[in-house]
Amino acid sequence: MSLRVGLIGFGRTGSIVASEIIKEPAMSLSWVCRKNISSDFQYASHALGKDSNFAPFVSAENICEHFLKQNPVDVIIDFSNHHSVKLYEQFSKFNIAIVSAISNYSNEELQIINNESHNCPILHSPNITLGINWLMLASKLLRKIIPHADIEIVEEHFRDKKDASGTALRIAEQLQLNPKKHVNSIRVGGIVGKHEIIFGLPYQTIRLTHESINRAAFGTGAIFAAKWLIGKTPGLYSMEEVLQKKFIAQIENM
Amino acid sequence: MSLRVGLIGFGRTGSIVASEIIKEPAMSLSWVCRKNISSDFQYASHALGKDSNFAPFVSAENICEHFLKQNPVDVIIDFSNHHSVKLYEQFSKFNIAIVSAISNYSNEELQIINNESHNCPILHSPNITLGINWLMLASKLLRKIIPHADIEIVEEHFRDKKDASGTALRIAEQLQLNPKKHVNSIRVGGIVGKHEIIFGLPYQTIRLTHESINRAAFGTGAIFAAKWLIGKTPGLYSMEEVLQKKFIAQIENM
Amino acid sequence: MSLRVGLIGFGRTGSIVASEIIKEPAMSLSWVCRKNISSDFQYASHALGKDSNFAPFVSAENICEHFLKQNPVDVIIDFSNHHSVKLYEQFSKFNIAIVSAISNYSNEELQIINNESHNCPILHSPNITLGINWLMLASKLLRKIIPHADIEIVEEHFRDKKDASGTALRIAEQLQLNPKKHVNSIRVGGIVGKHEIIFGLPYQTIRLTHESINRAAFGTGAIFAAKWLIGKTPGLYSMEEVLQKKFIAQIENM
Amino acid sequence: MSLRVGLIGFGRTGSIVASEIIKEPAMSLSWVCRKNISSDFQYASHALGKDSNFAPFVSAENICEHFLKQNPVDVIIDFSNHHSVKLYEQFSKFNIAIVSAISNYSNEELQIINNESHNCPILHSPNITLGINWLMLASKLLRKIIPHADIEIVEEHFRDKKDASGTALRIAEQLQLNPKKHVNSIRVGGIVGKHEIIFGLPYQTIRLTHESINRAAFGTGAIFAAKWLIGKTPGLYSMEEVLQKKFIAQIENM
Repeated sequence: MSLRVGLIGFGRTGSIVASEIIKEPAMSLSWVCRKNISSDFQYASHALGKDSNFAPFVSAENICEHFLKQNPVDVIIDFSNHHSVKLYEQFSKFNIAIVSAISNYSNEELQIINNESHNCPILHSPNITLGINWLMLASKLLRKIIPHADIEIVEEHFRDKKDASGTALRIAEQLQLNPKKHVNSIRVGGIVGKHEIIFGLPYQTIRLTHESINRAAFGTGAIFAAKWLIGKTPGLYSMEEVLQKKFIAQIENM
Repeated sequence: MSLRVGLIGFGRTGSIVASEIIKEPAMSLSWVCRKNISSDFQYASHALGKDSNFAPFVSAENICEHFLKQNPVDVIIDFSNHHSVKLYEQFSKFNIAIVSAISNYSNEELQIINNESHNCPILHSPNITLGINWLMLASKLLRKIIPHADIEIVEEHFRDKKDASGTALRIAEQLQLNPKKHVNSIRVGGIVGKHEIIFGLPYQTIRLTHESINRAAFGTGAIFAAKWLIGKTPGLYSMEEVLQKKFIAQIENM
Repeated sequence: MSLRVGLIGFGRTGSIVASEIIKEPAMSLSWVCRKNISSDFQYASHALGKDSNFAPFVSAENICEHFLKQNPVDVIIDFSNHHSVKLYEQFSKFNIAIVSAISNYSNEELQIINNESHNCPILHSPNITLGINWLMLASKLLRKIIPHADIEIVEEHFRDKKDASGTALRIAEQLQLNPKKHVNSIRVGGIVGKHEIIFGLPYQTIRLTHESINRAAFGTGAIFAAKWLIGKTPGLYSMEEVLQKKFIAQIENM
Repeated sequence: MSLRVGLIGFGRTGSIVASEIIKEPAMSLSWVCRKNISSDFQYASHALGKDSNFAPFVSAENICEHFLKQNPVDVIIDFSNHHSVKLYEQFSKFNIAIVSAISNYSNEELQIINNESHNCPILHSPNITLGINWLMLASKLLRKIIPHADIEIVEEHFRDKKDASGTALRIAEQLQLNPKKHVNSIRVGGIVGKHEIIFGLPYQTIRLTHESINRAAFGTGAIFAAKWLIGKTPGLYSMEEVLQKKFIAQIENM
């Protein structure tokens, strides 16, 4: 039976993620919660260029116990914004797995997530692509192997992106580097997103590079996370942890 | 007490490795076995620009039980060529650890190494740099995580290097790729050595790149290997294994 | 007054080019010639998500003297396929400038283009992006400056792209390199398009790299070409020539 | 007849440049002016590992009219430091061509160079490699072609290199970029030297990259400059100008 998904958020990234979900054979998109419900489209399926009627839009106010009984889902995928965390209480009552890709929670909001994770499995990762999480884990391992190497992070994005990328800051944190000194941000043209971690030794240089081609990578990551999360015991998880467990399982078999 | 090293080979790479060994505080270079003993230099120390007399040159014919009793070492580092394998019997009698960085052993020679490794620990790795071995291991792990990714290997070297690099072929083998189809060799100018493994997914690309700055990287790798090998039980080891064990130890602590 | 454009071709690339043209203040899209006129859309404007009615679709059979009198344009931009060359006779009668981005003309078709260019200015370039043409010209210049350098071309594209890229082959030809030996094609995942030309000298390496982010780059290039072509005397032009003239004009002022 | 060279400076870079000069068939190294004349070596030839006696060392104090008459040269190559500019008066009296690769002249010293260039041809370029100067010129041209592109400069060097590279600052100046905002300096391990100029457009990115393999590149550049300078009328020249003239000559023949 296919996994029933409730998607929160239908902005620039959310709608691309929706496209990926409806392409995935093992999943079905049950409904999409979005901020502004227009009269133009009642169904996400239409907004995504499909003829048939499925994945109706619903507003946050209408998400309640009754709605969830009538429109049951196995997993929530959240690409909206930090406000949606207030809906999580509803989901946890039904023990629905939650994948959150939101990056800027306040401390109070993180506390809510923590609390609800006692009742349902929640996976929270600000950057949910497989590639970036692999990059992070592989870099941490490399740093342990060659602790004396110098490390710099270079990230490149489109000209209008403000501030250093959240992903680069997270990598710096994981590698215990001062982001003000070791994160180098390049802003030019329309670069979708590139992260490079450079390890310098006296006689050799190692580079780990991740390049985003388009935002659909978030969809692939979220689908991977959702499949992994289904059936897990309540608790708070992250993509890094998921990959770390896979690393351990694989490395012992090599 | 510092580790006493016997070095075999004093060619282009061997002499750079010797320089690294004499810079290493925890090691001392006891002697150097080389093919042509000239009358110009009796000591490797002089050939390396040092004033004091140490690390005398010795020819392969003179390496025997008597010599090794008079000139005891804890570890042999071999950067000569496949012929030197015939000396290993002498070393194994004294349970001396052996680090071999030779790439082109015949099957008979590999058999000798295998036999002698019952008496002493032998670490054999054709490419002994930390960076390349990390690259290999990290790629294998990444392939397990994203088995559906397309993989290509690009290696760049100086114009006169013939054939695909042995390291690239080894990476292909480890990743179960047909080297004829997936190893791309670039030969231009004076590039010391660059290996890049490209993992392509529909929406993202990951690149792992290793660039050699100069051959002293082999010295660093051999020193690392020698320190690790000392005190190990007899057996056949490789740099990949050493790193794999380090990976496992680290990943479980993260 | 804005430049009136007739666009031929409305496939994957053509429709993105159309989007770029309607965003360009100095241009207006008069009509679009496409293969299959469906009853769903009468106007390209609708297919591009605009409410107003402009840029009607027309089929190739209906392009005739009468149509062009009723629907006059200043420039034709052709992103369809080699068959459309048979329409050029109609355009040249009216001295309409033609920008052709078609890559696979037969010799007969090239002859037609040649003939018609006696009556109207035609710019023909298989790869019409500014970046690629700059790359080509800069490489040719670099080769003249350092003729002894080794040169290799590396091109990366999505896994399903067959054969070496036409652009890479053209670069090889311009640099007088045997494409079978010096064009290296990497096919992985979803890479949009990357071309790198590596110049190797004994002590230094120079790389010129062009990365496509998306196909709209063709639109920018075609718009640049169309503006340049307007008012030129009849004749056959190419993007390389346009850039070469700009190079000369600029270099003498530096 | 081969070109007679007087070399000033025999430090880390100077001695490598000397090696390149003695390898060059069309040149002969007449003498080398160095700061500290030791009793160990009377001849640069010995310090460079040659058996024969040539290229005697001379101290700056001994460079006078008499010395230059006895030891005539066609061209001076200066890799010492800004102090040596005080010797230029001697050279200009004999109309000897001067190639200066010094980077940190004071305004007074630049004035001296200017004055002496009325009597002899002087080529002054802080970074004298062909590659870097080509990079600079090609970037300036590209900026003229696509003036709306965003530009960033990334330079990578060994960990101990202080401050932004002089070359990167010069590139920024030539491209009219604020170096504080647009030069990004990466310091890790033992990277010899890498400069990358990134041009970002909405739909495409162009990168020009120069990688130094070792310092002998300065020798190649100085030799190229010296050959070009011989026979020129007195005046002040730069590598950029030399390349610019070559560009113009080539582009008109393409």
